[in-house]
Amino acid sequence: MSTRNFNFSAGPATLPLPVLEQAKEDFLCYPGAGASIMEISHRTKTFLNVLDEAKSNIKELLGMSDDYCILFTPGGATMQFTMLAMNFLNGASADYLHVGTWATKAIQGASPHGTVRKAWSGKEDNFNRLPADDELDLDPQAAYVHFTSNETIQGIQFSRESQVNGKDLFCDASSDFLSRPTDMNKYALLYAGAQKNIGPSGTAVVILRKDLLERVPEGLPPLLDYKVLYDNDSLYNTPSTFTIYIIGLVSRWLLKTVGGLEKMHAINKNKAALLYDAIDNSQGFYKGHALPEYRSLMNVAFRLGSEELEGKFIAEATAAGLDGLKGHRSVGGCRASIYNAMPTEGVQALADFMKEFQRVKG
Amino acid sequence: MSTRNFNFSAGPATLPLPVLEQAKEDFLCYPGAGASIMEISHRTKTFLNVLDEAKSNIKELLGMSDDYCILFTPGGATMQFTMLAMNFLNGASADYLHVGTWATKAIQGASPHGTVRKAWSGKEDNFNRLPADDELDLDPQAAYVHFTSNETIQGIQFSRESQVNGKDLFCDASSDFLSRPTDMNKYALLYAGAQKNIGPSGTAVVILRKDLLERVPEGLPPLLDYKVLYDNDSLYNTPSTFTIYIIGLVSRWLLKTVGGLEKMHAINKNKAALLYDAIDNSQGFYKGHALPEYRSLMNVAFRLGSEELEGKFIAEATAAGLDGLKGHRSVGGCRASIYNAMPTEGVQALADFMKEFQRVKG
Repeated sequence: MSTRNFNFSAGPATLPLPVLEQAKEDFLCYPGAGASIMEISHRTKTFLNVLDEAKSNIKELLGMSDDYCILFTPGGATMQFTMLAMNFLNGASADYLHVGTWATKAIQGASPHGTVRKAWSGKEDNFNRLPADDELDLDPQAAYVHFTSNETIQGIQFSRESQVNGKDLFCDASSDFLSRPTDMNKYALLYAGAQKNIGPSGTAVVILRKDLLERVPEGLPPLLDYKVLYDNDSLYNTPSTFTIYIIGLVSRWLLKTVGGLEKMHAINKNKAALLYDAIDNSQGFYKGHALPEYRSLMNVAFRLGSEELEGKFIAEATAAGLDGLKGHRSVGGCRASIYNAMPTEGVQALADFMKEFQRVKG
Repeated sequence: MSTRNFNFSAGPATLPLPVLEQAKEDFLCYPGAGASIMEISHRTKTFLNVLDEAKSNIKELLGMSDDYCILFTPGGATMQFTMLAMNFLNGASADYLHVGTWATKAIQGASPHGTVRKAWSGKEDNFNRLPADDELDLDPQAAYVHFTSNETIQGIQFSRESQVNGKDLFCDASSDFLSRPTDMNKYALLYAGAQKNIGPSGTAVVILRKDLLERVPEGLPPLLDYKVLYDNDSLYNTPSTFTIYIIGLVSRWLLKTVGGLEKMHAINKNKAALLYDAIDNSQGFYKGHALPEYRSLMNVAFRLGSEELEGKFIAEATAAGLDGLKGHRSVGGCRASIYNAMPTEGVQALADFMKEFQRVKG
């Protein structure tokens, strides 16, 4: 069998090795089930326990109150762009922070369902920074304010929630979910496609303040109706059971092995510093995309002096077992995604490789 | 590690053991990827090959012409109930064959999107039979005619396509997809939630005659727009990559190990006969739900003399390693789901158990 690389893919992304090893061990026969977890009904006691553990781990990690519920929805964040607008925009107006490519997609997804105002846009700055709170042009009548907490393609991340006083804050946290302590009380709705920080692709996790369910209009398609999903505990139809199972294992790993989100955050800060230091100490050989103040702890986007050099960098890194470093096709360059599951060892190996590559080619 | 039962669950359902063994072997490190297939981008060459193989296997199994395309959609068949109506009903009228619980759900899903006519209903007969072609009350103006080829809960199955001359035939084949030869030229659209015959839950396979794409209205949510999915080869967003991977392995198993759909059908007929013979030779100890002419080869639904006896039957069968035999919560009784992946050995074990249980309790 071949060996595992350090996998810097932006998503689907690397998963914690102990999670994969556990899932592999139980792959043919989940304990007590006499079958793979993939092969049993979502209504069995065995699967309901898996679902409950995934929810209770996430609840504990975030210190969530009972005012919130956790839903597993069909499709990923892209489906949420549409779904949240069908449920809560619904002909009204909402404010969106236009902070990068994923914010653009969230805006596109919502636009057919009401008025989408851009409360701020970083487009003129090529999305290399984020707004200060006093730069936001907020509409007091907005149904909600939507922001993207981390932009994978531009590599920028809010270091804290924006202050949107009195307004319901919606957050696409797909690429930094469970990567740091998060005060859920600041949010009305927070969602994340699974395939970056918490599992394989195929579902999104949605955390919703329950009073919002009263605003859901009648007549939505049932699978796009948060109230239907809530009333059925995400089991209106057969959900993506294997994805939920892996989410349960990843959240258990965060809780029991890592020791919670404070510790995860410290590890993530340390990992990101290794790469940003390599960039900052390179005398311009590597150039980070984001302004330093807005740098993402999850996705480190950088360029080299030429596309040719970038091609060599990526090819030699891949040959050295450092994979997935090609920047998104929309912007080019290089990108290292270093989500929760990327070990410090992998990041250190990349930082070392960057220095060596510069020494030889610089 | 515990041992595998024979798993008669109606879905998610048992998968071919060689498929699970292969997936387990490659679980940490897919050949050439340096990572699990779950951990790599859906836009890598490695995953595109997986996607292409899944499609080409299905195409070969069905002998499909290039007039059709294969899509992998978010959510399962329940999402398709809504999606196909948003795309092709869209305020017009369509005919539905009301043949069981899943047909009822398909009708419910479509109803908000136009006029849904019941061209026939088996409700008065408690869904124990299917219509003859001349019983159908078809509307020549219908946008399409929709039927459910196999009803898992009632255990009835069309042995062939209904004749709906000149009309576009839509089929929910979730529970008998790839279980027998199927002439795709008779269909305009055929879809299947993955979790019965071809993989884990999390996606549906949709086969669509390409000329239908011209009828898709403007302005649908992108993930619910067949044209968007077709134009992006099912990669508009991150699809359920692990589910598609397993579908690729299952379809390869059907093609290479089983030897195609004629052979699969012969095996399935033989398996079903073992159980129906046990019922028919029981002097009424076991009573099949379906009228014999309409019996499903996939789901064998039967009752015993009392709920108490059924409870004992299910408990003792489970203890004997024959799991998942409880009938659907909506109808009670017993049900053995014997999709493609259930080996003849498992069905024989159940038939033997049924005889022995009757000998002791009868």
